[in-house]
Amino acid sequence: MDAKTTTAIVPTRAEDYPEWYQQVIRAADLAELSPVRGCMVIKPWGYSIWENIQRELDQRFRSTGHRNAYFPLFIPLSFLEKEARHVEGFAKECAVVTHHRLELSPEGKLVPVGKLDEPLVVRPTSETIIGAMFAKWVQSYRDLPILINQWANIVRWEMRTRLFLRTTEFLWQEGHTAHASETEARAETAAMLKLYADFAEHTMAIPAVMGEKTESERFPGAVATYCLEAMMQDRKALQLGTSHFLGQNFARACGIKFLDMNGRENLAWTTSWGVSTRLIGALIMTHSDDDGLILPPRLAPAHVVILPVIHKEADRGAVLTYCQRVAAELRAVHYCQRPLLVEVDEREGRGGDKVWSWIKKGIPLRLEIGPRDMTADAVFMGRRDKPHKERRSLPRAELVATIGALLDEIQDTLLARARSLSAAHTRRVESRQEFYEFFTPRNAAKPEIHGGFVMAHWAGDAAQEETLKNDLSVTIRCIPLDTPCVARGKPAEPGKCPFTGRESPRRVLFAKAY
Amino acid sequence: MDAKTTTAIVPTRAEDYPEWYQQVIRAADLAELSPVRGCMVIKPWGYSIWENIQRELDQRFRSTGHRNAYFPLFIPLSFLEKEARHVEGFAKECAVVTHHRLELSPEGKLVPVGKLDEPLVVRPTSETIIGAMFAKWVQSYRDLPILINQWANIVRWEMRTRLFLRTTEFLWQEGHTAHASETEARAETAAMLKLYADFAEHTMAIPAVMGEKTESERFPGAVATYCLEAMMQDRKALQLGTSHFLGQNFARACGIKFLDMNGRENLAWTTSWGVSTRLIGALIMTHSDDDGLILPPRLAPAHVVILPVIHKEADRGAVLTYCQRVAAELRAVHYCQRPLLVEVDEREGRGGDKVWSWIKKGIPLRLEIGPRDMTADAVFMGRRDKPHKERRSLPRAELVATIGALLDEIQDTLLARARSLSAAHTRRVESRQEFYEFFTPRNAAKPEIHGGFVMAHWAGDAAQEETLKNDLSVTIRCIPLDTPCVARGKPAEPGKCPFTGRESPRRVLFAKAY
Repeated sequence: MDAKTTTAIVPTRAEDYPEWYQQVIRAADLAELSPVRGCMVIKPWGYSIWENIQRELDQRFRSTGHRNAYFPLFIPLSFLEKEARHVEGFAKECAVVTHHRLELSPEGKLVPVGKLDEPLVVRPTSETIIGAMFAKWVQSYRDLPILINQWANIVRWEMRTRLFLRTTEFLWQEGHTAHASETEARAETAAMLKLYADFAEHTMAIPAVMGEKTESERFPGAVATYCLEAMMQDRKALQLGTSHFLGQNFARACGIKFLDMNGRENLAWTTSWGVSTRLIGALIMTHSDDDGLILPPRLAPAHVVILPVIHKEADRGAVLTYCQRVAAELRAVHYCQRPLLVEVDEREGRGGDKVWSWIKKGIPLRLEIGPRDMTADAVFMGRRDKPHKERRSLPRAELVATIGALLDEIQDTLLARARSLSAAHTRRVESRQEFYEFFTPRNAAKPEIHGGFVMAHWAGDAAQEETLKNDLSVTIRCIPLDTPCVARGKPAEPGKCPFTGRESPRRVLFAKAY
Repeated sequence: MDAKTTTAIVPTRAEDYPEWYQQVIRAADLAELSPVRGCMVIKPWGYSIWENIQRELDQRFRSTGHRNAYFPLFIPLSFLEKEARHVEGFAKECAVVTHHRLELSPEGKLVPVGKLDEPLVVRPTSETIIGAMFAKWVQSYRDLPILINQWANIVRWEMRTRLFLRTTEFLWQEGHTAHASETEARAETAAMLKLYADFAEHTMAIPAVMGEKTESERFPGAVATYCLEAMMQDRKALQLGTSHFLGQNFARACGIKFLDMNGRENLAWTTSWGVSTRLIGALIMTHSDDDGLILPPRLAPAHVVILPVIHKEADRGAVLTYCQRVAAELRAVHYCQRPLLVEVDEREGRGGDKVWSWIKKGIPLRLEIGPRDMTADAVFMGRRDKPHKERRSLPRAELVATIGALLDEIQDTLLARARSLSAAHTRRVESRQEFYEFFTPRNAAKPEIHGGFVMAHWAGDAAQEETLKNDLSVTIRCIPLDTPCVARGKPAEPGKCPFTGRESPRRVLFAKAY
């Protein structure tokens, strides 16, 4: 970016939000589409965000008694067939392995040979294969609960793909647990949803609504699906994660049985829960601006970049030495129990281009250091949560002493901003007309940010849901749980459904969604 | 195990080594075969060893400038076809995806539909797909080197599988780098081999020989393959890892070109290197004994287990409180930059069974604590590297103060033992007869541990290699590098090949192998 009156990302959010999203990813060098249809390559800056998400979540899983394990990538067709709704839900989008060898044809082309007796599906989710193992491991109530988590790659054949949001292959974690009682399994389902909400809020700086899905959006085979829904800057909802209470459906299908204390045989109660690389899409769309990515410090691949400012070749040695000294001092500081991650950008090239490359990468703090700063024993600091021109000089010692607090301040600012966007565009709606107006763009010809979250009464049925989907692309995101997380007023209040006129026990959350 | 005169693992190593290996895995609850042909389930204790391997290697990769990224699971057939020897090497063992959807047949069975125009191979290794991305990313010498690592799952169709050693799916890391010069790429290949050797020795307590593979064992498409070979307790060799100098073969096949400083177009020079979950197999076979797994402290999922000894119900509360206090004190101690991992085994059951379960899991230190120990403010300690009866009482304060040193001592003991086994069964052989005798079991009817590593001169050809393989199942493991790591005397010395009588410039390493 040269003319500072324009933005680093073209187009802006207001001009073309979906294209802005792609350009932010490109400018930050997070990921790109691969030559393999629907599959992405996650590049180092993007993958590092995922590793940070993994580390933070993993600690939480561990401290709540879960242990990591690894199960096969392939699922025999007969396993998938075991649960009727499960197979129906996933059959349409499976990659199927049918052969285990290749041969060179007379034309010099490779052709699949060695046909498998039973085709294998590349896991679209692992309930059935993990269930089969649980069935082997569980005999008595003493073997329960089993609390397992798996970090893995997943394949669901997607026709229309978007980086991080919808790709044929993605990375995720899937928790799978088995319990001796319904109460315990329901408590696990709720606890993991809460864990995700807490992670989203405190680590990702993303506020979210916790709720239950209606039947039409339930996980195939689940008794109840709970989810976290967050508002993106285009006011659409993005599902951050899900937690499923599977009842005894998979225990029955897979044969997970145990003898209770009285020697009676029972089916176990199971749960599953997961989040994926989709969270990176949520991170981008919650915090970034028209100059590119903005990273919450707790997930940033690096917290600080030091940019040496060298106008005269004679200064180079001294400036670089000073910069490396500042870097070493900062690396000795701990932030969130880990050493600060500091980059020193010694690349050749124009200073302005280098500064802008880091703004677009979303690094929380930029320190420009030239001969004058050196003399003053100070740094010239820019914060990614403030306008790029708003920079200030800070004594080096003060920076080192306060950098943790500075990063916390940025983290808090991002959460506050996201909360206020979400609050500003969430409204209670009482009539059908108001509902339709809220979700209709003013200019149908041009993509335009509009709408938001609607809390409205609901006593409709699946057909009614379908109508709203067809008319407005609006769906029920969830039936919010009556918890302090639903900051928009207690949803559990009786009222009248604006679509059917019938009595409704509580409001539900409507939105357009990713 | 009840009768203390027998061993916890049946059979013993001497009785039936391959079966002993399976039983050690089962007794330590590391992994098991899944219902999916050739695929294993890695259970929490085993997966945790892999996570520790990952963390330790990852730090080393990072500190040498490598960055993690993620590439697609699927590789289009046409990509695999690009390098002639590469496709030849991998075509025989590929899982092939041919369809992307399933439909319920009239008989109620799922059948694959949605045939792909171009079949996809589940990655057996990623040179071709990563090469295609490098070709996009590299334009000028300024874009080089690219230093990438990927942690991923890999599929190679295997007919005969053994847990950790040979499975259809396994986990690994694969480094892929591109360089502007041959010198730099060769230096990278050597540096990564050295990094692996250092990791094996200092973290896994496994000494290994670094060397170059002969043509017959070279990676398909490589100019040179380097490897690490370690001696297992049955005196067979296990390859711990490989580092390949790929020359310009994959750069040519994938089109990785760059403009040099003079504006001339050049092909890049690439390398790749990897280790896999096979390392866990090596760990088991290097250190375990007839009572089960023995874990080097630097890779143990837990360092210490505390076993409360409760004879009278009245003591329970006080003993458990004391045990938890000791656990908390130990957890505050750091070992290898991380908090000590301490288990407190409060399960019901016989004390002896509990102790033996931890011996079989290989935990480095066991602390038995009962009322008498409490009174003495002491613990009754057993070390996994010593006979199980050799235990001693240790004042609590002394334990806390010296536990790091104790663990280091165990780590050193394991390395010393492995070194001495390897040295005891490595010999220099000068004649064909001596060679055949060394590698021939005394009792052909019964499996028997015999042989070892032979350093012998070699001036034979591929046909000669084939003869040794057919006669004795012995292969050239590598041409050892002339480095201090080869503790068995300098291999580079001219001499006479015992098989052909021809002059040979240096000795090579022969062994039976996994």
